[in-house]
Amino acid sequence: MAIDPQALLERLIACPSVTPQEAGALDLLERELSASGFAVTRLRFEGDNSYPVDNLFATRGKTGRRLLFAGHTDVVPPGDRAHWTSDPFIPRVAEGRLYGRGAADMKSGIAAFIAACSALPQDAGIIQLAITNDEEADAINGTDKLVGWMVENGHGFDFAIVGEPSSTEIVGDSIKIGRRGSFSGKLTVTGTQGHVAYPHKANNPLPVLAAMATALSSERLDAGTEHFPASNLEITTIDVGNPVSNVIPMSGTLRFNIRYNDLWTPETLGDWVRERIGAVAANQTQVLFEVSGVPSRAFLSPLGADIETLSAVIAARTGKAPDYSTGGGTSDARFIAQYGPVVECGLVGPSMHKADEHIALEDLHSLTAIYTDFMRAFFAGGAK
Amino acid sequence: MAIDPQALLERLIACPSVTPQEAGALDLLERELSASGFAVTRLRFEGDNSYPVDNLFATRGKTGRRLLFAGHTDVVPPGDRAHWTSDPFIPRVAEGRLYGRGAADMKSGIAAFIAACSALPQDAGIIQLAITNDEEADAINGTDKLVGWMVENGHGFDFAIVGEPSSTEIVGDSIKIGRRGSFSGKLTVTGTQGHVAYPHKANNPLPVLAAMATALSSERLDAGTEHFPASNLEITTIDVGNPVSNVIPMSGTLRFNIRYNDLWTPETLGDWVRERIGAVAANQTQVLFEVSGVPSRAFLSPLGADIETLSAVIAARTGKAPDYSTGGGTSDARFIAQYGPVVECGLVGPSMHKADEHIALEDLHSLTAIYTDFMRAFFAGGAK
Repeated sequence: MAIDPQALLERLIACPSVTPQEAGALDLLERELSASGFAVTRLRFEGDNSYPVDNLFATRGKTGRRLLFAGHTDVVPPGDRAHWTSDPFIPRVAEGRLYGRGAADMKSGIAAFIAACSALPQDAGIIQLAITNDEEADAINGTDKLVGWMVENGHGFDFAIVGEPSSTEIVGDSIKIGRRGSFSGKLTVTGTQGHVAYPHKANNPLPVLAAMATALSSERLDAGTEHFPASNLEITTIDVGNPVSNVIPMSGTLRFNIRYNDLWTPETLGDWVRERIGAVAANQTQVLFEVSGVPSRAFLSPLGADIETLSAVIAARTGKAPDYSTGGGTSDARFIAQYGPVVECGLVGPSMHKADEHIALEDLHSLTAIYTDFMRAFFAGGAK
Repeated sequence: MAIDPQALLERLIACPSVTPQEAGALDLLERELSASGFAVTRLRFEGDNSYPVDNLFATRGKTGRRLLFAGHTDVVPPGDRAHWTSDPFIPRVAEGRLYGRGAADMKSGIAAFIAACSALPQDAGIIQLAITNDEEADAINGTDKLVGWMVENGHGFDFAIVGEPSSTEIVGDSIKIGRRGSFSGKLTVTGTQGHVAYPHKANNPLPVLAAMATALSSERLDAGTEHFPASNLEITTIDVGNPVSNVIPMSGTLRFNIRYNDLWTPETLGDWVRERIGAVAANQTQVLFEVSGVPSRAFLSPLGADIETLSAVIAARTGKAPDYSTGGGTSDARFIAQYGPVVECGLVGPSMHKADEHIALEDLHSLTAIYTDFMRAFFAGGAK
């Protein structure tokens, strides 16, 4: 029985699944997927200093190539509801658009994919879905553990699509073939506190901190790669907190963030930072460099035949091949990329996270058709 | 009738005159000075965003040279009384020392000077005292206004002594002939806030701020003068306060303090700062430089015959001429220096502001003798 993507999307939007509450969204998918012939496994991951998260794994087909579709049912909070024309969790159609929190990011991607699956024969190939309810917040007990569990349990994949809103103006104008990584660090320089009238008895750490800020921000990491812009470091804050004008402070801190391309790993970036700050005369201060949190790795999917196939079916539907983008922030695709090629292909993004988030209904049907066309071609092809 | 400096000092210490409470200290001086033939005027100054302050002006003698003695009755708080051997406001004598808050800084100077005056004939010359009860805190409604009032009302002076503890190990080993000035400033650099993933849409002010920190702290202001060490700038704090790692901040601030010698004025220092920061490429940020508070001016008293006289009487008493010092923090002498030559000559300083503040009783009597000897020589001499 064919599933209508709009009807499914409206039912998903009606679940107020703000991270980490699944609010019935995963239950709904479990019912729909089971009815479409999928074997569904619910997986609850917890620990690692984050809240417990509901996840869903579904698989259909026993032979043939293996496609993974990944996504998330959780949404960001609606914010001030006064900015919404109507209730963000009651889907509303007006002038060919469907409004609601999660319409673009990314319940539409899930609805389109499940609708596409319903149009394919049960034995088309191996179709797998990895749906988390925590992409928008910590992302610790979500896709990372879900895909790890899959691979450990024999559910590998040949190609993966993440249904994130990858398009910029019309559906299919852009797919994301990689993402930059993100690396945050903290630098603490400690000298000797003292009175400004007796500087020889103190050792001000701030000239050293300033020189290190200059060392970190004045040299380009690289000039960019074929598919990525140049890596970039931004100093995000410098703080001392000395309230009095007659005291030389003991220490100061600097924090920075690097968005980086496929030329770098967190390890090589750490070396680069240590080299830059090591080149600054420490003037007998103590310099402590710490990585903040867990860096997210950059990835670039190999531009193989499956991406060419996806590009071709999009061009056939829209008249124009998609741009291969690596722009924007981070996404769960970084976790999937560790196990195989992955692209992000979904609806138009600019309204996501905003009030009156919406999609064009025509785009939803186009995306469903693109997914359907792609799966037909993907499963018809041999292993690459 | 001769006044005993120790008895007067003990009575002054017993007044808990923590700024701005005179706590009976000025009332006591008024009675003692009146009994010694002084005409006493009490002056209460207020306003200018500070608390009201009690001050005392006293004058004796109608003809001859004019000597001004300046000082303060206020003391810093005792701090944690657990660190004191006994009550800081109950004078205690032990092993030839007198303990109590204000013993060194500077009730002893006042007691010694008044005792010295009591040993001189009434017509020795014109002796004036300017005593404030706010030197340790704001110093806005104290000596600055008191000396201004004096000069406006015809009470000028040929030479001034401030009774601050100028000595380092034994009384008279050092007198201060000048003080460095203090200049505080604030620099605010404002760019354009944005997301670290889209740096081309933002303009990070922190590289500019860091470069300005380097520009301000890397060049010496001067190499010092005959009587002063080199002027020195210290960056006292840099603050941004951006709590998140994915945001490029809008602005950052830097504060600095300059302790400077007689080569500079607040005006020339402002020009120097503007020139240094103006040499840094602003990269389309907005740069705001503000002077913080009212800078205190540096001063150096001309090394005239009166200072030579003071040096000679000290050498006659102690066997060694005093060092001419310009070290240490700021003092009320900076206000007096605008109207005439001034030196600081008082007891041994290192215990001031600390627990168990004390002086040697022998030093108190030596200082009284030095003041007496000096006044005799000063009034015997002609106008210089």
